[in-house]
Amino acid sequence: MPKGRLEAFSDGVIAVAITLLALDLPIPEPDSARSLAHELAARWPSFAAFAVSFVTIGIVWINHHAMLRRVAQVDHRTLLLNLLLLLSVCLLPFSTALMADYLKATEGERLAAAIYAGSLLLMSVLFFAMQRYVLRVRPDLLHRGVTPEVRDAVLRRNAAGLVPYLVATALAAASPYATLAVTAAVAVFYALPSTTADVAAAPVAER
Amino acid sequence: MPKGRLEAFSDGVIAVAITLLALDLPIPEPDSARSLAHELAARWPSFAAFAVSFVTIGIVWINHHAMLRRVAQVDHRTLLLNLLLLLSVCLLPFSTALMADYLKATEGERLAAAIYAGSLLLMSVLFFAMQRYVLRVRPDLLHRGVTPEVRDAVLRRNAAGLVPYLVATALAAASPYATLAVTAAVAVFYALPSTTADVAAAPVAER
Amino acid sequence: MPKGRLEAFSDGVIAVAITLLALDLPIPEPDSARSLAHELAARWPSFAAFAVSFVTIGIVWINHHAMLRRVAQVDHRTLLLNLLLLLSVCLLPFSTALMADYLKATEGERLAAAIYAGSLLLMSVLFFAMQRYVLRVRPDLLHRGVTPEVRDAVLRRNAAGLVPYLVATALAAASPYATLAVTAAVAVFYALPSTTADVAAAPVAER
Amino acid sequence: MPKGRLEAFSDGVIAVAITLLALDLPIPEPDSARSLAHELAARWPSFAAFAVSFVTIGIVWINHHAMLRRVAQVDHRTLLLNLLLLLSVCLLPFSTALMADYLKATEGERLAAAIYAGSLLLMSVLFFAMQRYVLRVRPDLLHRGVTPEVRDAVLRRNAAGLVPYLVATALAAASPYATLAVTAAVAVFYALPSTTADVAAAPVAER
Repeated sequence: MPKGRLEAFSDGVIAVAITLLALDLPIPEPDSARSLAHELAARWPSFAAFAVSFVTIGIVWINHHAMLRRVAQVDHRTLLLNLLLLLSVCLLPFSTALMADYLKATEGERLAAAIYAGSLLLMSVLFFAMQRYVLRVRPDLLHRGVTPEVRDAVLRRNAAGLVPYLVATALAAASPYATLAVTAAVAVFYALPSTTADVAAAPVAER
Repeated sequence: MPKGRLEAFSDGVIAVAITLLALDLPIPEPDSARSLAHELAARWPSFAAFAVSFVTIGIVWINHHAMLRRVAQVDHRTLLLNLLLLLSVCLLPFSTALMADYLKATEGERLAAAIYAGSLLLMSVLFFAMQRYVLRVRPDLLHRGVTPEVRDAVLRRNAAGLVPYLVATALAAASPYATLAVTAAVAVFYALPSTTADVAAAPVAER
Repeated sequence: MPKGRLEAFSDGVIAVAITLLALDLPIPEPDSARSLAHELAARWPSFAAFAVSFVTIGIVWINHHAMLRRVAQVDHRTLLLNLLLLLSVCLLPFSTALMADYLKATEGERLAAAIYAGSLLLMSVLFFAMQRYVLRVRPDLLHRGVTPEVRDAVLRRNAAGLVPYLVATALAAASPYATLAVTAAVAVFYALPSTTADVAAAPVAER
Repeated sequence: MPKGRLEAFSDGVIAVAITLLALDLPIPEPDSARSLAHELAARWPSFAAFAVSFVTIGIVWINHHAMLRRVAQVDHRTLLLNLLLLLSVCLLPFSTALMADYLKATEGERLAAAIYAGSLLLMSVLFFAMQRYVLRVRPDLLHRGVTPEVRDAVLRRNAAGLVPYLVATALAAASPYATLAVTAAVAVFYALPSTTADVAAAPVAER
């Protein structure tokens, strides 16, 4: 099957999910007892979690782009793996809002952080599974130029990309702030332009 | 008429509808009397209904993809049938939330389940109607390679796909849990990779 | 300028607007004093207004499709007219919800109906303005095959399409139910397959 | 890298963000003490801010369109700059709603106006940064026909486009109404058809 509509549908779902993140930015009630500046500052977790999730989904989109550029055709199982990956992307507005709402709470804050980092980990695992499927199980779907060396390098980088999210999920047991810090650091790290052109062409979990 | 914008518009509507499903995932209030884990666990119907609807819409998208790959051109009536199909897809975030909110209620839970399964049935019926229109009424719109045997096989599989949703709707009179179980089973069944390459190319109701 | 991204952006906005309509479908509170069936039946204006607006936006999309198929290129003013048309489409989820919420109210119901029909009228007027611009002011942007006869016929049908929405808006002063009935009749009328192939290729306000 | 999916993803995000603006249009409660006309009139800031933001995002889309038409290819850094630009677009439904909710308040109204104009300024700055990157840092990514004269003219117009948003942000300290008036004037100014064909092809901040 040609890959055009897979790309179009994925672009659509990712574009909607990334834009819906902003629906959870808090608008304090006018005429509250405290100043607007104070109210907004108190809600900084919502803005921080929004920024981290936005950049992370954006980088996943760039990676998805890079993954599919190596592919000439897709089969039914590629479509299903892609659907599961999109499901995990669609969960992010939920887990981001949960993280933001509970970061400063005294109960549930660790579970919320674990769910947040866990949803990022799930997205990375499903991305890895789809990448592995096209690179290992169905290399016949790839463009000719994708050598075994490139395939190994891409998969190794993908696997390495799972580690920080495992760490972030584990850290939730200690502190939700640590979880947020790690996920933010990952977003910044992958957003920074890399020095190797080759790597730049296949970023994030692929770095 | 060329089919490019029909595909683009359908991809857009389905992408938005599938992503909006996640807007109904519940975020418990911090500082409630019970723990976050308890609150989330008590809301499991929302997560279960989200997963079933997400996978089902995803498979409808894959099927829609397969249906239109057989088509070379579209006419005005194809556009209208497609519009009705999209209307039924857009109803799913509503019927999914209704099902999730009422599953554990002691009143209205059977009606909610019937509306949920009924909306899935409606979607399948409209999919079948559109499929039948292009395969039977306007075979001149198809690509040359689509033989009468293929057309019969596709339509037969489509018709068979209506049965489980009829069953799920009828079961609502007995138990909403039975309805949810059947719709979940259908989603898993169609998501499982099939062994026949030919069938894999035209999944879901087409299986 | 090529028209590809204009089509893609318009498809995107219309797809989002048509799908957002369903966000306003009401989900009654479980455990209310009345049965779910009773609660849903009492909210029939929401479902009726949803159906009318969905079909109307869908037909506008089909018309937009037909309008742009006649066009070979677009200029800056076409983009601006299209932007205003999209603005009127984006107002429909608001005016639809307003109509649904006020239909059975004893105060404001006529104003709400006038705003609803007025927003449909605005959309038709902006569609007509864009159609007129490409057909009359910039016929050099059209494909060669679009004869003066076709241009006149299309514009005349567009102008005629304004009349029912003028009537529906005026009727709001008498009864909001009359307004809803007229807008529903228009949607059904344009959705019905027409007998003339030529007309079928350029439906709705163009009929 | 080819630019097709960058365009598709950007169209998607901008289309969703522009459509979500309408979600914040207020629907007064039926059966309130005051008439619907009165209630809607009292909420005019929501409608005004909606119109300004809609037209502004629309013009940014037209500009984005113009910027990418000069580009033949994109690199990794273009994707990241584009992602930051899209982040600023996605913030607009939030800052627009904040502005609308606080315009008539007696506390926080200046901060809300500063955040609103500041989010428009941020969008313009990021647009300028992306424009500057492709025109100055990577002119090798451009189509051949883009002469140094064109590049200078485009960048100069972009830089000039930052000034009114700086003014609007500064004016928030004096009056939020002044801020809204300036941002509205900018939207109208750029929406007006320009007389120079060359300029018309590269509007808004590029004017």
